[in-house]
Amino acid sequence: MVRPELTRPPVRHKFTEKQSSMISPILAVSRRTRRTPFTPRVESLGVIGYTVYNHTLLPTAFRSVEEDYAHLKRHVQIWDVGCERQVQIVGPDAAKLTQLMSVRDLSKAQVGQCLYAPLCDEDGGLVNDPIVLKLAEDQFWMSIADSDVLLWARGLAYGMRLDVEISEPDVWPLAVQGPKSDDLMAAVFGDTVRDIRFFRFETLPFKGQPMVIARSGWSKQGGFEIYLNDPELALDLWDTLWDAGKHLEVGPGCPNLIERIEGGLLSYGNDMTRLENPLECGLDKYCHHDREIEFIARDALLRISGEGVTRKIRGLKIEGDPLPGCVTPWRVHRDGLPIGRVTSAIFSPGFASNIAFAMIDQAAWDTGEVVQVVTPDGERNATVGPLPFV
Amino acid sequence: MVRPELTRPPVRHKFTEKQSSMISPILAVSRRTRRTPFTPRVESLGVIGYTVYNHTLLPTAFRSVEEDYAHLKRHVQIWDVGCERQVQIVGPDAAKLTQLMSVRDLSKAQVGQCLYAPLCDEDGGLVNDPIVLKLAEDQFWMSIADSDVLLWARGLAYGMRLDVEISEPDVWPLAVQGPKSDDLMAAVFGDTVRDIRFFRFETLPFKGQPMVIARSGWSKQGGFEIYLNDPELALDLWDTLWDAGKHLEVGPGCPNLIERIEGGLLSYGNDMTRLENPLECGLDKYCHHDREIEFIARDALLRISGEGVTRKIRGLKIEGDPLPGCVTPWRVHRDGLPIGRVTSAIFSPGFASNIAFAMIDQAAWDTGEVVQVVTPDGERNATVGPLPFV
Repeated sequence: MVRPELTRPPVRHKFTEKQSSMISPILAVSRRTRRTPFTPRVESLGVIGYTVYNHTLLPTAFRSVEEDYAHLKRHVQIWDVGCERQVQIVGPDAAKLTQLMSVRDLSKAQVGQCLYAPLCDEDGGLVNDPIVLKLAEDQFWMSIADSDVLLWARGLAYGMRLDVEISEPDVWPLAVQGPKSDDLMAAVFGDTVRDIRFFRFETLPFKGQPMVIARSGWSKQGGFEIYLNDPELALDLWDTLWDAGKHLEVGPGCPNLIERIEGGLLSYGNDMTRLENPLECGLDKYCHHDREIEFIARDALLRISGEGVTRKIRGLKIEGDPLPGCVTPWRVHRDGLPIGRVTSAIFSPGFASNIAFAMIDQAAWDTGEVVQVVTPDGERNATVGPLPFV
Repeated sequence: MVRPELTRPPVRHKFTEKQSSMISPILAVSRRTRRTPFTPRVESLGVIGYTVYNHTLLPTAFRSVEEDYAHLKRHVQIWDVGCERQVQIVGPDAAKLTQLMSVRDLSKAQVGQCLYAPLCDEDGGLVNDPIVLKLAEDQFWMSIADSDVLLWARGLAYGMRLDVEISEPDVWPLAVQGPKSDDLMAAVFGDTVRDIRFFRFETLPFKGQPMVIARSGWSKQGGFEIYLNDPELALDLWDTLWDAGKHLEVGPGCPNLIERIEGGLLSYGNDMTRLENPLECGLDKYCHHDREIEFIARDALLRISGEGVTRKIRGLKIEGDPLPGCVTPWRVHRDGLPIGRVTSAIFSPGFASNIAFAMIDQAAWDTGEVVQVVTPDGERNATVGPLPFV
């Protein structure tokens, strides 16, 4: 049998066409859906599912999303986030190009700083929402969400004749997340990691190899991201963390759907796309079109903010039993009039409710508004509220 | 249970770390891994596995890769290739930008023509290898492989101040492939489809809605691609083809790994990437750097062709039992000296052998050379040969 992973009957759960989100197809992997240097450990620790992110495997659950969530909030987890690819911009025009792509003012950014910086095009549409790491005055990494930022950057640099080199370096982030992250990291890298401030990085050695280590990560539970720059050390790094974490109940993990929605973390491609702008997505504080800096989206954001946005991403609490995952936008209406759509949803143990992100029109975006959501399990009432959820 | 698709134990086949390509994880779907308008039919017809391609689901097998292959070569199949997203370039500078991105001379392209046109950057690296459809003198579609060509195009257009609009239209290709394709298409669209020449398209109505229909597709068995431009008609189109094809033994299908390797069809992201150039990938006949036309990669290709390439994609026949799929490049050496890597491999019923694509150094690229491939099932001898295989 040549491709055994392609000959197993699919598993279906109460399959009907309406509830087609319940199907569980397997993922056929190939070189194009890149493995990371950590994938062998992820597999031997029993990963259940993957998604594909930046043409790379990203685990989505180990025990179950619910169990992983409970563990993440109490202990410490190691996450293979090698799919967070870096777009490296180096050269005399590196700072200029990085700023052109971003809507955030990077002029005062310091070496050693990580900055959440939405990237927007000339229409104000979101291209990506990376963390920008300033490695040197003329060297930046964009640690990207799921779109080929490298191609946009190279197109801009070529077209504008900028003096930069743009590449995807052989760097593979590994995250350590959860309340015991400081203890685990200190056991491996020394107590100096405890002094790394939020969204700052230090360069610390592992087996003599200096690596960028940042206090950051895609959860609200605290933690670090280690930017592994030598794939040959990947399994050694994983195993060292694992062994040092046994008394801390370390476990394998990954960005957790419950935790990220509870924490109000938007996901590029799910909750925001090139068809939305950052002012609609509640990213106003990262938008510096009011400052005298040059970036591609500035005129568009000035126009949009002048006119005022007419829809915004809001939190919803949806009544009733736990809902299935949101794989296509769910329509939202009020008294039969369409007023938006849900893009991510999950049952939250913390709020004992279904919670969701929804793009909602101005007519219904006020906190306390009651709207109707067309879910795969039928229409449900929901209440509009702030993000993060309260 | 909130996400039932994430709580099932994974299926493993003879799992060892060495053979980790044998794992069968499930694919966790979300809005970001977009469904197509045809996905409900794909699911109800029992799709076994997906990959993610252009942030969109692409089926990889229905019965098994082997059974799908046998059926494709005898009958006719309907393929959901909605993941072949279109990058639409419209405006006074549309022809100029399309040419700038491509290495193929498009100056004599006619409206109604489809052209396989590798896209390359200023280093000669492959960005994508789409089919370009010339819809009008100032309107082109690039029907793309798996990379965000739209971002590159928009970056170039912004930087070069070109007068174009670039978008992803609401168009979802559906392929009809196999030796009985003409009969099936004629039953639905009339005998006029029989007159569509290879890599030409006509605009024909379905339920009164005019659609682009091309004689093209990602197999060597013949067939058509229907560029559905009204998602509301998707299931109607699928069902109409299905009903008309019953006496032809129509079946669901998808790009088939055996058939595409047997046919010598390279896959972007698998067999060629931005780190390879088209002269290394055997795409010489599409490279027109010797003509006086302006495109971004021209200087790089002139330099590369002047120096001569030192490695090329070649066919390999690998001895022994059927091998597992190639999920990371397999090292190739000769007498212990590294001379290349395998990027796609499959057991071919047609050739009664494992066949593979491999990038091979000049020292060993001649037909008949015997090399060694480091496969997950151990080292095997292989013979170098031409593509397509003979």
